[in-house]
Amino acid sequence: MNRKAARAPNRTRERILDVSLALFNERGAPGVTTNHIADAAEISPGNLYYHFRHKEDIVMALYERYEATLSEVLGSGSGEDGAVDDLWLLVHLAFEVIHDFRFIHRDLSELTATYPGLRTRFQRGLDGGIERTSAYCQALAAAGALEASPEEAHALAVNISLVTTYWLNLQALHHAGRRDIPTDDDTISEGVFQVLSLITPYLRGPTRDEFRRVALRYLPAAV
Amino acid sequence: MNRKAARAPNRTRERILDVSLALFNERGAPGVTTNHIADAAEISPGNLYYHFRHKEDIVMALYERYEATLSEVLGSGSGEDGAVDDLWLLVHLAFEVIHDFRFIHRDLSELTATYPGLRTRFQRGLDGGIERTSAYCQALAAAGALEASPEEAHALAVNISLVTTYWLNLQALHHAGRRDIPTDDDTISEGVFQVLSLITPYLRGPTRDEFRRVALRYLPAAV
Repeated sequence: MNRKAARAPNRTRERILDVSLALFNERGAPGVTTNHIADAAEISPGNLYYHFRHKEDIVMALYERYEATLSEVLGSGSGEDGAVDDLWLLVHLAFEVIHDFRFIHRDLSELTATYPGLRTRFQRGLDGGIERTSAYCQALAAAGALEASPEEAHALAVNISLVTTYWLNLQALHHAGRRDIPTDDDTISEGVFQVLSLITPYLRGPTRDEFRRVALRYLPAAV
Repeated sequence: MNRKAARAPNRTRERILDVSLALFNERGAPGVTTNHIADAAEISPGNLYYHFRHKEDIVMALYERYEATLSEVLGSGSGEDGAVDDLWLLVHLAFEVIHDFRFIHRDLSELTATYPGLRTRFQRGLDGGIERTSAYCQALAAAGALEASPEEAHALAVNISLVTTYWLNLQALHHAGRRDIPTDDDTISEGVFQVLSLITPYLRGPTRDEFRRVALRYLPAAV
């Protein structure tokens, strides 16, 4: 087999995933069948089956993409230098990734109930996220940028994870059937502002003023 | 008709609602049919139909109960006197009501998508809740107990609503399929602690120390 032929199945696989992600985000994963996906990807159901036996395999592959993208984006921050400048950037980047894979968060209860494998992965991701965020906050506290006991840093980390995980659900519920649908950018900005609002009051001194200034940039004009 | 006979249909109606609430909480409303409810209430499907035409009517009647109970419990607080002592009590009582009607919060996306009437009511409740919480926080700020700009008070109110609304979802997801299932009391206590953690860092002076002491009482020993 020459190199071109060896790469072709991978290209099809990636295209299936791209198309599935777009459909899942648009209609919600529970409402999309493998036939819809084959149609949209312009391939035969047999070809789809060759790459992914079940819809679950597609959901899991997309979850892996989501996790890898999130890790890549969040990998750099540790908080050890007490610099909070990059914290708002991390929050912003995390929200962009969540928005790109919003079907996971929007139908979280249903998807994790349907696919136990996804539930286990998401649980592990959530636990790891809370632990890393908590360590980050405790490092900021140790560097004197943030005033919080270890219990408070942990509670802050849980609240950051909760607001980040369910922000899109609250927004979808809040705006469903109404006229004032915000743009995607505004939804992300408001989410970033809400998470920054969790952190700001724990900051001390000039760090707090600087952080507040950054947070206000995320405040949509409409609020 | 004598008084006793006039009251009988109401007693049946209330019993149907009690039984439905228990079933919905146990199995989730989407998985419960009117036949299940008639069976559990030990009445005929015809008798159930006399009181409630559709499952939606039962869901809506329970939502009205939920809202009335929540209003009754939260009705007293205004924050105008700057006293935060009763704030933790309000949060605790709110969590108890949410726990009593947990089927609403746990299947929120699915239920509000299935029943547009419920969605509209929940949206109105959410908006009102955010507004009242925001006014409460701003009253505390005006009384000098809390340090927050109006934007921060609003963001705090949104985060309080979000954590309160989705706490049971996060907990259900976190513990699904695992061995360390917390008791209902611990789930409520942890939720109260998380909400109090949102408020504490905005408090100033002795109020903050007092509030921290109260919040720590909610911290489960295991954390």
